[in-house]
Amino acid sequence: MRVLGVDPGLTRCGLGVVDGLPGRRIDLVAVDVVRTPAGTPLGERLLAVEHAVDGWIRQHHPDSVAVERVFSQHNVRTVMGTAQASGVVVLSAVRHGLPMGMYTPSEVKAAVTGSGTADKAQVAAMVTRLLRLDRRPRPADASDALALAICEVWRGSAQARLKAAAAAGGVRR
Amino acid sequence: MRVLGVDPGLTRCGLGVVDGLPGRRIDLVAVDVVRTPAGTPLGERLLAVEHAVDGWIRQHHPDSVAVERVFSQHNVRTVMGTAQASGVVVLSAVRHGLPMGMYTPSEVKAAVTGSGTADKAQVAAMVTRLLRLDRRPRPADASDALALAICEVWRGSAQARLKAAAAAGGVRR
Repeated sequence: MRVLGVDPGLTRCGLGVVDGLPGRRIDLVAVDVVRTPAGTPLGERLLAVEHAVDGWIRQHHPDSVAVERVFSQHNVRTVMGTAQASGVVVLSAVRHGLPMGMYTPSEVKAAVTGSGTADKAQVAAMVTRLLRLDRRPRPADASDALALAICEVWRGSAQARLKAAAAAGGVRR
Repeated sequence: MRVLGVDPGLTRCGLGVVDGLPGRRIDLVAVDVVRTPAGTPLGERLLAVEHAVDGWIRQHHPDSVAVERVFSQHNVRTVMGTAQASGVVVLSAVRHGLPMGMYTPSEVKAAVTGSGTADKAQVAAMVTRLLRLDRRPRPADASDALALAICEVWRGSAQARLKAAAAAGGVRR
């Protein structure tokens, strides 16, 4: 199965696509970070996020999309923009009829490092090892997007949802 | 000028359209509240908000859209959904090439009641009086959406932006 992971944000939005199955090896397909300058009007920044996510869905045909679940405990200065960007990501996924996985940072950390309190360097190290990369994906948003995608593959929940959707009459593509 | 005001939310999203000019009388064009049940998947709730805002823009052809500026000081339990919904509203407006006005609750209260600390009942009373309605718009989200639209008309900023956009090469419609 193929998963698009998105670490939502306005200044930097991480996008990562991986192929894999629970318990098997996982391969990197693509990773990138979309940036919009802080001075850009909010609408244009959200449009840039939408274009990127929509384009990646059309290009990479993921079976599922994983996005960070945003909480208000995040950095107060940036959390509203992050939440607005995540809304746009969820909207793009549902427009394509794709199942969504939403995970807290702790769930992602626990999935890839075994510890829900791991730091960003530890997550990046495990993403690098699991995908057999030569170097750590930078910036952290790229690494976090891949970690989200790996989390979705391993939790296998996407698969379960795909099967349930297929059983219920087919998955829209 | 015509303004669509949106009080963003997932459980209830207020929509209000008014016609008016700064310093002149203001007329109600339409008001409604879009609701989605709490158990509905997030993607479908955001899609419902998008459909409503997009449909109202197509139907009522506003010159500008006003939306509440969401802060993390809001109710923590619901603020993330509100922020995600507001992102979808901003995205719909920018897709139609419409200028946006974003106002804090205090700015809206100050615009329609003269006091930034007015309560919801006072805002509803003034909206009712300013639009010469027989009764207060209910629920509060409907009244708040109209207050946002009135605020945008009165601040005149939308007009200024329209003129600036026209001077800069025309406003997309």
